[in-house]
Amino acid sequence: MTTLITNIGSLLTNDPELGTLTDAAVVVDDGRVAWVGSAAAAPDADARVDAGGRAVIPGFVDSHSHLVFGGDRTAEFNARMSGQAYTAGGIRTTVAATRAASDEALDANLVRFVKEMQRQGTTTVEVKSGYGLTVEDEARALRIAGAHTAETTYLGAHVVAPEYADDPAGYVDLVTGPMLDACAPHARWVDVFCERGAFDGDQARAILTAGAARGLVPRVHANQLTEGPGVQLAVELGAASADHCTHLSDADVKALADARDTTVATLLPGAEFSTRAVYPDARRLIDAGATVALSTDCNPGSSFTSSMPFCIAVAVRDMGMTPDEAVVAATLGGARALRRTDIGHLAPGARADLVLLDAPSHVHLAYRPGVPLVSAVWQGGVRVV
Amino acid sequence: MTTLITNIGSLLTNDPELGTLTDAAVVVDDGRVAWVGSAAAAPDADARVDAGGRAVIPGFVDSHSHLVFGGDRTAEFNARMSGQAYTAGGIRTTVAATRAASDEALDANLVRFVKEMQRQGTTTVEVKSGYGLTVEDEARALRIAGAHTAETTYLGAHVVAPEYADDPAGYVDLVTGPMLDACAPHARWVDVFCERGAFDGDQARAILTAGAARGLVPRVHANQLTEGPGVQLAVELGAASADHCTHLSDADVKALADARDTTVATLLPGAEFSTRAVYPDARRLIDAGATVALSTDCNPGSSFTSSMPFCIAVAVRDMGMTPDEAVVAATLGGARALRRTDIGHLAPGARADLVLLDAPSHVHLAYRPGVPLVSAVWQGGVRVV
Ligand SMILES: [Zn+2]
Ligand SMILES: [Zn+2]
Repeated sequence: MTTLITNIGSLLTNDPELGTLTDAAVVVDDGRVAWVGSAAAAPDADARVDAGGRAVIPGFVDSHSHLVFGGDRTAEFNARMSGQAYTAGGIRTTVAATRAASDEALDANLVRFVKEMQRQGTTTVEVKSGYGLTVEDEARALRIAGAHTAETTYLGAHVVAPEYADDPAGYVDLVTGPMLDACAPHARWVDVFCERGAFDGDQARAILTAGAARGLVPRVHANQLTEGPGVQLAVELGAASADHCTHLSDADVKALADARDTTVATLLPGAEFSTRAVYPDARRLIDAGATVALSTDCNPGSSFTSSMPFCIAVAVRDMGMTPDEAVVAATLGGARALRRTDIGHLAPGARADLVLLDAPSHVHLAYRPGVPLVSAVWQGGVRVV
Repeated sequence: MTTLITNIGSLLTNDPELGTLTDAAVVVDDGRVAWVGSAAAAPDADARVDAGGRAVIPGFVDSHSHLVFGGDRTAEFNARMSGQAYTAGGIRTTVAATRAASDEALDANLVRFVKEMQRQGTTTVEVKSGYGLTVEDEARALRIAGAHTAETTYLGAHVVAPEYADDPAGYVDLVTGPMLDACAPHARWVDVFCERGAFDGDQARAILTAGAARGLVPRVHANQLTEGPGVQLAVELGAASADHCTHLSDADVKALADARDTTVATLLPGAEFSTRAVYPDARRLIDAGATVALSTDCNPGSSFTSSMPFCIAVAVRDMGMTPDEAVVAATLGGARALRRTDIGHLAPGARADLVLLDAPSHVHLAYRPGVPLVSAVWQGGVRVV
């Protein structure tokens, strides 16, 4: 069963040879892209879809999210944006709600957000643990996530668990010991929130090194709130991604540029948007030669958007990215941050993850902020939206 | 035929007596809200809709848009956001494309955007002329708009028509003379772009006064790019709205506060978003006592969003509004800017324009930026989405 998608006004392939094609067509066969070229030269296929002159892009690769959680934090958000004090709350609210939730409730919530993302063009999503913070709750989160994505990340080191508030070293022992034992079989990646108030450089190194020894590849929440050791630690350990990268020294930028083929700088503008914080400077990173990805950081505390188009629009408006750069960062950039060569581009052999936009060009993702432009989505060749 | 919408988790009525209700219900009868109250006390109805505990708000009132146009300006936007020079373009590109378009093409384009707005919860939209700039093309734009909305605005004074580049006074004579004659029968409002490079205070006064003499109520594009006479002229002439209000002196703010019952300050964050300009300071206006509305300014040049939820999220993030204030400004505020008492609120007797959100609270419109949260829309009691 082959499908021809034809009359594509603009096809962003993210392939250096193919570039962006006009009047293009794609043939999908058995979940893969089988052929890409001019509509006039397209081969026959079993089924045919007319794109009506509109744009097709690779599915978005959202390489950073926190979707296994219970509850929400509407009241906390409302208080923050209304200038009111809100004493309770923070991440511990979500930890308590997540621990209290049934497996079924967590699964249903995750599925709801994965589908919401699909409707907005996301065809691959990474999902982290990090709201359980016990051996059982972290392993449970990863089991639940693993049923819906191959990109699962062990983030036992999100914050120190409340039970270990007076013994952070003991919590690191747990994260690198029994919790890792329980989680490693269910995870591809290991992550740590390296920040004042969470885990310092030495703790982060211990956690990432222990994970790597169990076959998990490191990624790091780095330099979100302050300059710190996170970015350079990520580069030193060969992490796939340093995420946030909001507060960077010149040495941090140089380290990311030198590591462009190894460590992606993943920028998460939803977090700065929703906390009224200063945005990361994508222009500085790109001009230095770093590889940049965009992701939602979808979580109920600091960035409750699931929208890659929204992140693209903000990255263009506030982070110095061109529309082309932002769309590439949201597709190919995310794929590189997950070390995937089968997604994020549309050349023959790639996974058939495609998004048809209700627009003549992918530039409209920035030109028309907030407008739902996703018209159809194929995931592994299957039409899902 | 009556319809009961029940099991509403949170009902924003924008009514001072009713407030925001939980566990609420609404009865719609003959296009109007017939009853509002507790779900437990709701009367019977012919049909019944279960809101599933989700939020219902009044339909958005988008009181400022430019939807009668031909072409788009993707290349110009892309160049601007990519730091490249772009010599052609500007509003004249759209004027040329609009003049060249058939009535049918302009109508189809308008309908496309009105429907796109509906899907995002907008149930009333004001539409301006202003891309024709000849007697016939301006009247044509208003005839086309008037087939789809009662809120039509004569904006012959958008910019000086290219044919009058050397004779701006002659163009003002046209706008206040034959063009007004042709347009007044098709418009409710008269508007002028009062700004350096467009029309100065004296010209704007002449245009608005001439329109008012023909029964059109003034509204003004004021103080968008620089401080100037627009806001105070709007207040002086009793305009329904001063739109943009980005660059305000203390005297401008005081004038708007004193005129709170007459002249609404309509803020258009899409324009600042899409031109990387400084945002208007909603907090300053609200604290001074002004009435504030939010609108999209939807147009292909400076603000190609049709999304009121997007404007709400940006207003909260960047303009100092609380989530409650922003949602009220996008509903009741827009109604006041259009001097409509039948829309923007949900008390018995109001027009049954309602939006069901896929969220437990209207706060999610700011908490979940970019996410399409509109689940169902009723316009005059008819389900349209
Ligand atoms: Zn994160
Ligand atoms: Zn305007």
